[in-house]
Amino acid sequence: MTTSKPALTGSITLPAEVGEEAMVVELARQWGADAIRDSDGTELSGEVMDLGLEVYSLTCLVRADQDYPHTHMDQLPQKFLMSDPLTATGPGLVIDPMAGFYREKYILDTKHDAKALWEVIDRTTGEVVPVEKWVFDPATGLVTLSGITPFHVYTVNFLVFQIWDTTSMYNHLTNGWTKPHVISVDPYHPECWDHLMAFFDRFLEEHPHTDVVRLTTLAYHFAVDSDQDSVDKFRDWTGYQDTISVLALEDFAKEYGYRLRAEDFVDQGYYNAACRVPSKGYRDWMAFIHRFVVKYGKALVDKCKARGKRTAIFWGDHWIGVEPFQESFLEMGIDIHVGAAEDGVALRRISDTPGGLVKELRLYPYFFPDVFREGGDPLGESLSNWIKIRRALMRKPVDRLGYGGYLSLALKFPDFVEHVADLCHEFRTFKANSGGGESLKAPIKVAVLNCWGTWKAWINSFGAPQKFLVKRPDVIQVAGTNLLECLAGLPVEVVFLSFDEVAEDGIPADVDVVINDGDAETAWSGGRRWAEPKIVEALRAFVHRGGGFIGCRGPSAFQHQGRYFQLADVMGVDKEVGHTLQSATVKAEVLPAHFITADLQGQPDFGNPETFVYVCDPATQLLAANGLHVMVAAKTFGEGRSVYFGALPYDLTNSRLLHRAIFWAANREREFGRWFSENPNTECAYYPATGQFVVVNNSGHPQRTLVHRGDGTTTEVVLAPYESMWFD
Amino acid sequence: MTTSKPALTGSITLPAEVGEEAMVVELARQWGADAIRDSDGTELSGEVMDLGLEVYSLTCLVRADQDYPHTHMDQLPQKFLMSDPLTATGPGLVIDPMAGFYREKYILDTKHDAKALWEVIDRTTGEVVPVEKWVFDPATGLVTLSGITPFHVYTVNFLVFQIWDTTSMYNHLTNGWTKPHVISVDPYHPECWDHLMAFFDRFLEEHPHTDVVRLTTLAYHFAVDSDQDSVDKFRDWTGYQDTISVLALEDFAKEYGYRLRAEDFVDQGYYNAACRVPSKGYRDWMAFIHRFVVKYGKALVDKCKARGKRTAIFWGDHWIGVEPFQESFLEMGIDIHVGAAEDGVALRRISDTPGGLVKELRLYPYFFPDVFREGGDPLGESLSNWIKIRRALMRKPVDRLGYGGYLSLALKFPDFVEHVADLCHEFRTFKANSGGGESLKAPIKVAVLNCWGTWKAWINSFGAPQKFLVKRPDVIQVAGTNLLECLAGLPVEVVFLSFDEVAEDGIPADVDVVINDGDAETAWSGGRRWAEPKIVEALRAFVHRGGGFIGCRGPSAFQHQGRYFQLADVMGVDKEVGHTLQSATVKAEVLPAHFITADLQGQPDFGNPETFVYVCDPATQLLAANGLHVMVAAKTFGEGRSVYFGALPYDLTNSRLLHRAIFWAANREREFGRWFSENPNTECAYYPATGQFVVVNNSGHPQRTLVHRGDGTTTEVVLAPYESMWFD
Repeated sequence: MTTSKPALTGSITLPAEVGEEAMVVELARQWGADAIRDSDGTELSGEVMDLGLEVYSLTCLVRADQDYPHTHMDQLPQKFLMSDPLTATGPGLVIDPMAGFYREKYILDTKHDAKALWEVIDRTTGEVVPVEKWVFDPATGLVTLSGITPFHVYTVNFLVFQIWDTTSMYNHLTNGWTKPHVISVDPYHPECWDHLMAFFDRFLEEHPHTDVVRLTTLAYHFAVDSDQDSVDKFRDWTGYQDTISVLALEDFAKEYGYRLRAEDFVDQGYYNAACRVPSKGYRDWMAFIHRFVVKYGKALVDKCKARGKRTAIFWGDHWIGVEPFQESFLEMGIDIHVGAAEDGVALRRISDTPGGLVKELRLYPYFFPDVFREGGDPLGESLSNWIKIRRALMRKPVDRLGYGGYLSLALKFPDFVEHVADLCHEFRTFKANSGGGESLKAPIKVAVLNCWGTWKAWINSFGAPQKFLVKRPDVIQVAGTNLLECLAGLPVEVVFLSFDEVAEDGIPADVDVVINDGDAETAWSGGRRWAEPKIVEALRAFVHRGGGFIGCRGPSAFQHQGRYFQLADVMGVDKEVGHTLQSATVKAEVLPAHFITADLQGQPDFGNPETFVYVCDPATQLLAANGLHVMVAAKTFGEGRSVYFGALPYDLTNSRLLHRAIFWAANREREFGRWFSENPNTECAYYPATGQFVVVNNSGHPQRTLVHRGDGTTTEVVLAPYESMWFD
Repeated sequence: MTTSKPALTGSITLPAEVGEEAMVVELARQWGADAIRDSDGTELSGEVMDLGLEVYSLTCLVRADQDYPHTHMDQLPQKFLMSDPLTATGPGLVIDPMAGFYREKYILDTKHDAKALWEVIDRTTGEVVPVEKWVFDPATGLVTLSGITPFHVYTVNFLVFQIWDTTSMYNHLTNGWTKPHVISVDPYHPECWDHLMAFFDRFLEEHPHTDVVRLTTLAYHFAVDSDQDSVDKFRDWTGYQDTISVLALEDFAKEYGYRLRAEDFVDQGYYNAACRVPSKGYRDWMAFIHRFVVKYGKALVDKCKARGKRTAIFWGDHWIGVEPFQESFLEMGIDIHVGAAEDGVALRRISDTPGGLVKELRLYPYFFPDVFREGGDPLGESLSNWIKIRRALMRKPVDRLGYGGYLSLALKFPDFVEHVADLCHEFRTFKANSGGGESLKAPIKVAVLNCWGTWKAWINSFGAPQKFLVKRPDVIQVAGTNLLECLAGLPVEVVFLSFDEVAEDGIPADVDVVINDGDAETAWSGGRRWAEPKIVEALRAFVHRGGGFIGCRGPSAFQHQGRYFQLADVMGVDKEVGHTLQSATVKAEVLPAHFITADLQGQPDFGNPETFVYVCDPATQLLAANGLHVMVAAKTFGEGRSVYFGALPYDLTNSRLLHRAIFWAANREREFGRWFSENPNTECAYYPATGQFVVVNNSGHPQRTLVHRGDGTTTEVVLAPYESMWFD
């Protein structure tokens, strides 16, 4: 065991709390904090300032000043909404577009010409209704259709101004606030831009003691549509729906040479959600807005730099357009990247961003009364999160941890306070022993292929069960399969790849294994992109020449020319979706022993035991099945190999299955046993920079395991529940 | 209780068995048989002839004479097959089209010009490969492609002659026969037609004692493709794949003004299976072949009539083109319609055919060694079948019962022999007390809407679980949902309606409730037909004006313009298939009491508890749910009503649910209680012709129930397991 002495303090950021200075001092000491963060309206007292902590000050500029929006209501963020579908029962129909939306959040745009920007669509035919057949009355807010076809369904795509900031509205409604509604503004308007820059100058002037300006966040809020009762009816944490202005639409048309329609944003009512296979128009719009946000962010960062202050960005609320995985993000010059993390996927979303920024994790639970209440279990939630985060941290580290909320609430849970002290110590130990660098990876590069690539790297690819999960609001729980969480903790390089990139340049030469994981018809699987010859040619050629392919859920799924899985030839399995009910499956027996399933005890638990996937090639190796439903299958294709998983919910068994599947697909089984901990409840990582290695117990029970070093020697290790143990 | 005295004999047909005359006589007496059926090769002895039974003699003309086909190998049935998909790894590819097919069953057609009839298709693009890029070598049977695109998938649509009759092959392989393979011929060829007619004349000449000529069956076998190892790889009991001749293709082109391609039959390898949404070309071909089969059948029947013999047709083997639900079927002039039945759906398939033919049921199990063996349970199978058949029989009667197989095997199971005697007695009691007529129906006409209408009336609409069922060959078991079986025993009129008819004429004026039951993407649900404005207009108008709609599994399912269920406006539910993962569902609570679920105890068991169907309209009445997964929902739409079921496996609870749903959808709840037996394990039927009614116990336990007569009076009835009891 190692004897490295980690620092007793440092790498921890705490929130300030007005009037509770003694608590701040006490917790800062117990947890070894070295930075403190004020919030809107929090002023740090002299007592706290005397602790010598670094001071982070927060501002969300687009909603900071509440005088300006009230006098510039044409500079609020806009968005296109689709009225709820209505069925005509005669040749006329009156539609109240706002009927399904919250009238305290949106107002109809009566400034711009509705006939030029709105669209009435016959959803039975998909045709746009000629403008002669409808009138919009700004006084009543109603759209009246005439001369239409009875028993067709009609919708109106319409433009609104957003008169209540989404986050402000959430806080108001959750906490029963009665203070005035906060209104955001859209900096795309030059007059607004100028106002915000001047406002920011004053902010910097008024915060001389601030070391780090935390931009929370930047320009545009993620997409949330609220129904008539203020309940979320659509939510996309990565969505660009709330970035519209007529001015930006005009500039886009000039730059791109084509004009985006309301329907490009409304997307049949699906609003280009992350789960949707994106259109070119929407992708272009994302790039266009991203460039503007970078310009805006850089202007703010430059002002900070000019005053000798550093900047941090928090990944939340108004983060749309920031896109930290794009190289252009770095043009802003931000120093510190802060993000909330409840699991390994969220950790990797922060730790994998390029550019060498200081990275800080905000841990859950926040010190809010939803968890920190009588009967609440903040320790349990923290521990469950931390074990997942630690797995991923072993592969890609971050620099700092932080907490948010009310410290006074945390102090009421002494066991939680003690647990956090241990957690902070364990984190500092990790930093010290690992040297802050990455652990040794297998020489395998995995590319996760979907429609988004780096634009939505390490974003949860929810499957259909997610919609049917009744969950606590605003805490991400993943229902069903979660390959990304399994992957987050594995000792391989991971990159994200889009179909656009593959169509353009094929599979990058340094990629060893391509993963396609997602429900059919979603952007994660790829939908119609799988009918593009260039895509399937590239994938088949890649595997045939020795590459690996791992498919999960609906890999390459798209009904086309006699196949549902377009790579059925590569995977050796296809899915029954109603076309081959009368065709037989290939009779296949489950192989009793295989490298991939070597650690599997019995049947894997993938949730629903019915995949409706069948073996379609006698060369397929069936590795697990429920009756004729294929759960795991493997196949060689030319020089390469592929693996199919019906689903992969996150647990230690399934993580190990994926671990082995990656090595098998990459044709590197012989290298599997280096820096490997045999017991699937444990994992290990080796840090070349310090020559130390760590073994962790991811389970709540004591575990014994044999750890294989890189040179073939082994060590037996016994670990207490959740323990991490370091060795030279 | 009634005192009607049914006949002690009659209405029963038995098979003859060579050398076992004593047994035949014994069983004919015990079961009260009045007819005996010989088979190919069976000669009835004088002892049997003396019993005074009617004699049915069997012939399957297209496979009766085995000299002719050997000298006319160009008159065998042909079919288009698709070679198994192959992935090119370079610019050339050699395909052995027959590699995936049984070489003892098919030979390549080298008589006709391959380049004119075959097609090589790039399944990656869907394009036909120009004939310049491939050559077929008749000597090797190989197709060589050149100048093609690497890593595209290629198939060959090719034409074969079938050199082994499908049923003969099945019998050979199942029983290990070594006698010569039977070859069928195609009567479409004029020379073959003439030969068969002459052959039939001789057959009639040689069977002077035959009362009824049983045509088993007519011209074309149903579709079975056999793989390289002789195992079924495709099966469609209703499929027209085996009806091809180049001559018929030419005649079709002349008559219809367009030419069918190989791909019209191959259908991407799906072969126009019953589950496939049919193309116009395939539907036209069916009508074309049906007309020919009627002409052929009529020629045979006319010959029988000329000799004073009646004719029967058995629904099996070579029945393709017969189409008993088409009015044109009656043009043949057949007298007796015989069909095998294992359940209520099969019974209705026979009893519902139009035209007033004598209808005879062949009951399972056949007296074959697969069931009549040590440890076998023929009684259990017979009873389970009979209870389902009896439910349906109460609504639509047949005239006769019959058995098949070896009587000697049946005699080894005395309890089975006694059970059949009871069953025959119960059947004759039914006939006597019901007067042979139909029971009183509710004034509700139900139309089952799918792509086939009457062309596949009462054909099981298998769902995806069917493919994953490991079952005994050749006995129909339905996996999962089975609305038709529930419907088969309900006291309502049932008709079948096709999308073509709805597109042409809308919903018939006398229809009260439309049912759309089937998996998405199948012909049973309707697939792309739901994107046709005329179809949805007709359905919406029908319901809005007061009609009822019942959807089950994937009703109106087709992804189009923001909806998966195209009648989401009518049903108030839609299904999550990956586009609305980030959109909220309407919050709905299950209604504690509703007419439809009034007899339901707890949660209905629909098999898989996850429907991924959600409430999309606040006006929807949620009647049963699993979390947010909708199991049963109801909604009013204008003057009409709709009901959604996630699935409806056959059991007594679900039959009652459907019973109530039909009355609710038809807006006739007030008439529900007439001739109604309260206990869901029991049912009753009233026969106006005789004024008698029957109450049956469908369960294996004694049941007590209150029976409501049509006049509002009630009777309490106690029934033994499976008992049927008659009342005046």
